[in-house]
Amino acid sequence: MPASAAPFPAPRLGEPYLLTPGPLTTAFSTKEAMLKDWGSWDADFRAMTKSICDQLVALAGDTRGEFVCVPMQGSGSFSVEAMLGTFVARDGKVLVLANGAYGLRAAETMRYLGRAHTLIDKGDYMPPRGDEVGAALDADPGITHVIAIHCETSSGILNPVAEISEAVYARGRKLLIDSMSAFGAIDLDVNRIRYEAMVSSANKCIEGVPGFGFVVARRSELEAAKGNSHSLALDLHAQWAYMEKTGQWRYTPPTHVVAAFLEALRLHAEEGGVAARGARYVRNRDVMVEGMRAIGFETLLKDRWLSPIIVTFFCPADPNFVFARFYELMKAKGFIIYPGKLTVVDSFRIGCIGRMDEHVMRKVVQAAKEALAEMGVASAAPPEAAIAERAKLAA
Amino acid sequence: MPASAAPFPAPRLGEPYLLTPGPLTTAFSTKEAMLKDWGSWDADFRAMTKSICDQLVALAGDTRGEFVCVPMQGSGSFSVEAMLGTFVARDGKVLVLANGAYGLRAAETMRYLGRAHTLIDKGDYMPPRGDEVGAALDADPGITHVIAIHCETSSGILNPVAEISEAVYARGRKLLIDSMSAFGAIDLDVNRIRYEAMVSSANKCIEGVPGFGFVVARRSELEAAKGNSHSLALDLHAQWAYMEKTGQWRYTPPTHVVAAFLEALRLHAEEGGVAARGARYVRNRDVMVEGMRAIGFETLLKDRWLSPIIVTFFCPADPNFVFARFYELMKAKGFIIYPGKLTVVDSFRIGCIGRMDEHVMRKVVQAAKEALAEMGVASAAPPEAAIAERAKLAA
Repeated sequence: MPASAAPFPAPRLGEPYLLTPGPLTTAFSTKEAMLKDWGSWDADFRAMTKSICDQLVALAGDTRGEFVCVPMQGSGSFSVEAMLGTFVARDGKVLVLANGAYGLRAAETMRYLGRAHTLIDKGDYMPPRGDEVGAALDADPGITHVIAIHCETSSGILNPVAEISEAVYARGRKLLIDSMSAFGAIDLDVNRIRYEAMVSSANKCIEGVPGFGFVVARRSELEAAKGNSHSLALDLHAQWAYMEKTGQWRYTPPTHVVAAFLEALRLHAEEGGVAARGARYVRNRDVMVEGMRAIGFETLLKDRWLSPIIVTFFCPADPNFVFARFYELMKAKGFIIYPGKLTVVDSFRIGCIGRMDEHVMRKVVQAAKEALAEMGVASAAPPEAAIAERAKLAA
Repeated sequence: MPASAAPFPAPRLGEPYLLTPGPLTTAFSTKEAMLKDWGSWDADFRAMTKSICDQLVALAGDTRGEFVCVPMQGSGSFSVEAMLGTFVARDGKVLVLANGAYGLRAAETMRYLGRAHTLIDKGDYMPPRGDEVGAALDADPGITHVIAIHCETSSGILNPVAEISEAVYARGRKLLIDSMSAFGAIDLDVNRIRYEAMVSSANKCIEGVPGFGFVVARRSELEAAKGNSHSLALDLHAQWAYMEKTGQWRYTPPTHVVAAFLEALRLHAEEGGVAARGARYVRNRDVMVEGMRAIGFETLLKDRWLSPIIVTFFCPADPNFVFARFYELMKAKGFIIYPGKLTVVDSFRIGCIGRMDEHVMRKVVQAAKEALAEMGVASAAPPEAAIAERAKLAA
């Protein structure tokens, strides 16, 4: 982890660190890459697009030319919808694995598409396991595709996609993966985990700025997907076919965001690729979780399921703790944190990703400690209900 | 036109001017606004979004709170699809007015949506007129909506939306306008031209960078549009309802692009708003067209239909003229131009929009003159076929 030896510089213009799972804090040079205007039709920009796609396919581990990358304008959810609408045939059926907001959003997308789907909903954070996926597929031969969320940022859980993939392909079905907040930092090598397509976005673990997503997909699946899409703008096959023919994006790309992403990819490679990026985030998480626990906070998840992307903490039971005030105090100290998304107990989240290292994470913990003192919170211990909730999580 | 008194500075990092209808050349301060990272959930960013929406509604002339603005991630075509999918009921029917690629794209969008539509296709550049729109509506009472392209950048024609609007509302139907490349420089005041919704994008006449579009719509129409959308990501009603409730974009916004747009709006107001922006573009066009004509080029359109957005020129008949070489020569001189989109004769286009003024346009003409000389083109006169094509355009 050579990059964390010397601390990263703080945001040059003094804005707070974003301890959020995208948008996140990016390198200044990534933002500086946006200081030029680019013609989207021009050869220079086409070369930038090609470089990005080639690098993303390489990050997915494809060395045999079996996978292609298709970027798509909009937020990551646009790319998820594009993936579902393009790869699932109109008479296909999807099994959605949900344990949080992003899984449920995939199901909602299927409802909009008017295509058959069924849902395994594990609630706020329980992981969908390979055996129950297998049982669901055995029970319904009509299911053609499964969609899994790699890291569900609602809780911060890292779902077991490898065992899910095995269950899916053992039954001859196909896997689509929403790896939005994980790709680039957590291994999703096509040689180790089988899938047809996966989606992520510019402003996650590659540490670009928001404005587009991308799908890395098996070429043969994409070729077979012509005519499936419910949407012109979100038709991944059409986007890919046009790009193959012209080297251009089909409609105006976010040129500056693309230029920033190219610089972000350069920094990702310079740091040491997926393994090094993931190691830095793991270190960020470990330092931050250890520090937060030392001042009395408790995590929702047991260590086994803690992702190095974002961590959910229970709000303290102390009546002096008010999240809105905690948020403002943390912001004043230079850190923007994230509200929780659990339905049962109050929580908040702290992201581990972006251009920051363990030195920053120690300051985050110190800021949280000070904020508690300023609020007059004597103990950060969670309420009994939170502990009971957590006890439901199988080890 | 005070802004053109002192010439705008050239692109600070030395990149070519973009004589293209978006992405375009933006002010350096617009790009500098992207040097900070913003939390999309944070109050500071929510305030930026609100300011943008308020300013865009004001630019459309609404003073009675009857219109709202809904930004949408992605390129302008994403917003067009969102507008069509949201405002046209599933059992509605759309009359598409086409005279170029963007009108045809609206028809293609309706085909993807699987909703009823019919097309008036005027070919490469003939304007759809009020009387023929009226006749089409009289002949088909099932038509609920008409979509018109304000400035069709395929040819650069400024379509007569005022007379189209009159024909539409005289028959109790509803008008949607794709004002992508016109809004902000050409009047589309809701008090003078009636419509239900219009769409544009960040990287056109407001001179922001690409990454999102926006729809300015009659609030009552939007309220009635719940459940129409074919797409979760492109559901304008859902986007608006969420923004009304939370002040946030429903899914991750392109934060840096939004920050740049706020600065672009500031510069737009500082210049003098729609009238002044339009006057500068008119001056850009007039200087450029006069200069190009002086060196022998001819425009596709008669002056009456020439927009101040982009102008189509016929390629010279001289066999020494090769567009790809002309493009490279112009680029080497600092100007990126745009290929033509006509189906019948060869052409190219030069945009008049972006952070540039008549001083720049004179240099464009000089560069074209030099490029012709370097290519050994003795005369820029178009072929006979081009003149015959143009003769079809009714005065």
